Amino acid sequence: MTIGTQPARGTRDILPQEAARRHRAISAIVDTYQRFGFQLIETPSIERIELLTGGEGGDNEKQLFKVQKRGEDLERAATAGESLVDLGLRFDLTVPLTRYFGEHQAVLPRPFKAIQIGPVWRAERPQKGRYRQFVQCDIDILGDPTIGAEVDLIEASTTVFAQLGIAVDVRLNDRRLLSSIGLRSGIELDRVDEAMIILDKVDKIGVDGVHSELTTSFDSAIADLMMQMIASMASADKVSLPWSDPTEAENDAVLQLNTIIGALGDRVALRFDPTLVRGMGYYTGTIIEFGVSDLAYSVGGGGRYDKLIGKWSGMDVPACGVSIGFERIIEMIADGSIVAPVAVLFESDDDVAQVLAAVRQLRQSGTDVAMISRAGKLGKQLTSLAGQNYAAYAIYRSGEPLVINEFQERAASPS
Amino acid sequence: MTIGTQPARGTRDILPQEAARRHRAISAIVDTYQRFGFQLIETPSIERIELLTGGEGGDNEKQLFKVQKRGEDLERAATAGESLVDLGLRFDLTVPLTRYFGEHQAVLPRPFKAIQIGPVWRAERPQKGRYRQFVQCDIDILGDPTIGAEVDLIEASTTVFAQLGIAVDVRLNDRRLLSSIGLRSGIELDRVDEAMIILDKVDKIGVDGVHSELTTSFDSAIADLMMQMIASMASADKVSLPWSDPTEAENDAVLQLNTIIGALGDRVALRFDPTLVRGMGYYTGTIIEFGVSDLAYSVGGGGRYDKLIGKWSGMDVPACGVSIGFERIIEMIADGSIVAPVAVLFESDDDVAQVLAAVRQLRQSGTDVAMISRAGKLGKQLTSLAGQNYAAYAIYRSGEPLVINEFQERAASPS
Repeated sequence: MTIGTQPARGTRDILPQEAARRHRAISAIVDTYQRFGFQLIETPSIERIELLTGGEGGDNEKQLFKVQKRGEDLERAATAGESLVDLGLRFDLTVPLTRYFGEHQAVLPRPFKAIQIGPVWRAERPQKGRYRQFVQCDIDILGDPTIGAEVDLIEASTTVFAQLGIAVDVRLNDRRLLSSIGLRSGIELDRVDEAMIILDKVDKIGVDGVHSELTTSFDSAIADLMMQMIASMASADKVSLPWSDPTEAENDAVLQLNTIIGALGDRVALRFDPTLVRGMGYYTGTIIEFGVSDLAYSVGGGGRYDKLIGKWSGMDVPACGVSIGFERIIEMIADGSIVAPVAVLFESDDDVAQVLAAVRQLRQSGTDVAMISRAGKLGKQLTSLAGQNYAAYAIYRSGEPLVINEFQERAASPS
Repeated sequence: MTIGTQPARGTRDILPQEAARRHRAISAIVDTYQRFGFQLIETPSIERIELLTGGEGGDNEKQLFKVQKRGEDLERAATAGESLVDLGLRFDLTVPLTRYFGEHQAVLPRPFKAIQIGPVWRAERPQKGRYRQFVQCDIDILGDPTIGAEVDLIEASTTVFAQLGIAVDVRLNDRRLLSSIGLRSGIELDRVDEAMIILDKVDKIGVDGVHSELTTSFDSAIADLMMQMIASMASADKVSLPWSDPTEAENDAVLQLNTIIGALGDRVALRFDPTLVRGMGYYTGTIIEFGVSDLAYSVGGGGRYDKLIGKWSGMDVPACGVSIGFERIIEMIADGSIVAPVAVLFESDDDVAQVLAAVRQLRQSGTDVAMISRAGKLGKQLTSLAGQNYAAYAIYRSGEPLVINEFQERAASPS
């Protein structure tokens, strides 16, 4: 049987140029959040199957990679007709975070400002640009009920995007306002989520498309009222309510949104967007999305989710978090490595002690140097080196000092 | 059913202090090798099951975590009585490297200087200090037949260890000399590996223990001769052969070892050790081990393996590589983060826009600042912050400039 060299279906190898870019991005992300006081944590890639099939993961649980029991456990399970699996590959970083916080809460500080970055796996149908293994990057503040958490997360995250050379704007909303708009349009409580799923499509199908779908699913009076409220809120200078009998929760949501915009608006492009839903799911307050101007997609987002983290401890732990769209930003950031050593070429019959001595001398002067063995035709090898991450080259010649040359390809191009 | 918060058996969560240390070590390792011209690559954590059960992985294949087929594929396999698994978690980085090089050889440079760092999984019986998920770090030079590859790897790796504050010495041997010692002691070709497995235990059972086991497995004449040759080689100033009719391969091995020692010996603690085996396995030439003086264990090692990489291309690709014992060095390197922000504490009723303005001012002066919400008793929170990675603290007070205070715990201790 021919085994072949391709990676498993739906996964991919990462070539050197992209791998360098990924490493550089991870360093920039982690280092910047650390400077803002966020602390890196790690959980294992494999978790007990019970934890990954408890319902918290929603649709992701359907895409779970399950790991078989081993040895005698497997035989016993097969004989007894029991489940053959006991582990799974994590499909996100949120389920592991709730478990981690539950397990280690006695030794973790409050508030706890956490950053996680690592691979997750989902058995999605393979398609262009989507892979079954990809990196997620989550940043969370646990145990802080104040709006300072949102402000801190947005300030830190926009700093990270700026460092990566990505100009973002921030859209804001609040889960409580979304619910109120639904209810005050005449939708029953247990169908509000359904209306929000329709509203969430506004980027794809437009306002008219949303109105039309709302009319079909509910009725035209509800659709009219909902879209009127949204239009009225979207057009105001400040966040304000288009109704006159606000509840405490509604007032609080408005105050918080205006506070975030007031605190950050002078440096960050920030706007209230009453159509922002982001799947809603477990959000309980602020909803945040980082978008790139002129591009229809987001590069990150998150919000407040005060009910989820406490499930293991039995008490509510206020929480607010954002996720950075790592794979998307990797496609956006420029190539070009920070590290560009000078290649020093040597022949197989050169005295390697003398080659190393010459290389060391160059390194001592502060130059990064790569020792590279001569292979194939010189011109071809130089072209290859010029296409890689090398700044210049020198050819070792016994008894002579190293002469550093620019690559002809680059020397010829206008600088 | 109570699911519990513990990680899967044999795996572990990494707390913030260690996670910061790991991130810092990865950065130092990758950045240093990049400065020496090594290029980062990545392969997926999951590979096709055929690739992981082809025999290349030796005993590791017995510890394979196997991933079940999904959806219809699983049902079909179950009905047909076929294998239920199609993927596995990689147990090392070498098998993926050979696949990667086979798949991408047309676009990879020659020689190709690669660095990989990432998790691997082995279903070992859980025991203290050994985990089922751990990080490996492999550095390889593919396509370079010269001894320059060994010199480059040792120079780069000892620089990395020095950067991490770990003083290493390097032991060297050559697979060809090991084979010759076996054969010239009178052992038959097909039992040489058996003798080497015994010799490999010298660190644990001593020279007398090895002699005794060799006598039991072979005979006392063979054991005497082998240990005499080894003692004679170990005591010489330079690497030399204790027999008078050397083959070309033996002469080449001696010349290469003396070349490595000559090139590096003035800066690196380097010695020839004729008992160094390192499981031998796929090595074809030089064997390298990085040890820590006064400690009985190695922190890395490797060697030349000229037959393995070419298996996919049908031609021999010379290769030399070392592996850094990542999990071991994480235990050895000092704590203490490079990043130590000042904590600025604010109350929930403070004006968050003003808090952020004060924090921004401090950041603009070049100070790293963490915004931290006040929680619990102040004294307790300060003690907690002092125990984390904070340099100092300030308590925000409306209308007043931030005053940065040292933590009392540290101020009181002698500096």
